[in-house]
Amino acid sequence: MMEPGLPEPEPLRALVQALRCLPGVGIRSARRMAYHLLQHDPTGARRLGEALESAVDTLQHCERCNSFSDQPICRTCADPERDASLLCIVETPADQNMIEASHGYHGLYYVLMGRLAPLEGVGPDQLGFSRLIDRAADGHVTEVVLATNFTAEGETTAHYLADMLRARGLSVTRLARGVPSGSELEYVDAGTIAWAMMERRPG
Amino acid sequence: MMEPGLPEPEPLRALVQALRCLPGVGIRSARRMAYHLLQHDPTGARRLGEALESAVDTLQHCERCNSFSDQPICRTCADPERDASLLCIVETPADQNMIEASHGYHGLYYVLMGRLAPLEGVGPDQLGFSRLIDRAADGHVTEVVLATNFTAEGETTAHYLADMLRARGLSVTRLARGVPSGSELEYVDAGTIAWAMMERRPG
Repeated sequence: MMEPGLPEPEPLRALVQALRCLPGVGIRSARRMAYHLLQHDPTGARRLGEALESAVDTLQHCERCNSFSDQPICRTCADPERDASLLCIVETPADQNMIEASHGYHGLYYVLMGRLAPLEGVGPDQLGFSRLIDRAADGHVTEVVLATNFTAEGETTAHYLADMLRARGLSVTRLARGVPSGSELEYVDAGTIAWAMMERRPG
Repeated sequence: MMEPGLPEPEPLRALVQALRCLPGVGIRSARRMAYHLLQHDPTGARRLGEALESAVDTLQHCERCNSFSDQPICRTCADPERDASLLCIVETPADQNMIEASHGYHGLYYVLMGRLAPLEGVGPDQLGFSRLIDRAADGHVTEVVLATNFTAEGETTAHYLADMLRARGLSVTRLARGVPSGSELEYVDAGTIAWAMMERRPG
């Protein structure tokens, strides 16, 4: 925190404070970032300023999949080539990007924009699960693929959603767990090996 | 890097790219920051956008001390209460803030905005040492206090500057090295103890 009377000009003080809205950025990182931008990259700083304002002004949540979109319905949801009987639930747009990059899925998505985290006050209401139920019950979806992360919170979210969706007569699946493609068993953790063994399939 | 055809709307893609101008922020951090701002803090994002543009538009380097300033001569350099015979050289405005906060110095400053780092291509020309020499040779300065960091690069910078300034007949001092105030010897590193012993003074 800056004490009054220290020699920081007001626009610099304001920039350092504003940078602290970034996740994981404290006062020292904010100051380092401000100095770097002003000293070495004013063009980048200006571009970032414009990008922030443009993104906040133009982005909204897609009415169908809840991801960020510059249209009421995003490009993916509006694509008639997609298989509307499949709905894949992910935590973030970054997860959706990864699944798209795998070219192994051609259905639609629902992006939670988070995961259940009771200790942080994130429950079913905060994640808008009722909207997700409405989306999944559109009459076209027959299978919901749970693709939340394989972390404690992601698993909890998946279990909660599975119960909720199955109760509404939907077929629910989960991404397979197992040995990562291209890896050597010697370097895979024991928990993963245990899962891969338990879920072994005809070779 | 985003592949073409992935479902990221253009303003989001532009924001993620623009965030990468921040030091130490790669593609994954940039994406996490963008999602966080859009989802949880659009007000902070807008404030940051404005602060960036305002800082880049209004801040310049003080003609005397080289620190950031919203005036041609900064508030500190323009203060007639300051002792103009003392000039303290620091690496960054953050270091200047720390010295000011100590209330132990009432002279003027010169802010290098960096330190000698030959491997990164930062030499005396990049740091504008000729401007510093002109500043120190203004006829008022009689003692230059070197307050660069006590790191390898900061020490190199201090030695280089000491030689250069002494050759011009200026008295040059360095911040004292020793045991930090309030610390117990058991927990101080051996290098610091060795320095404190070597530079011991009448008690």
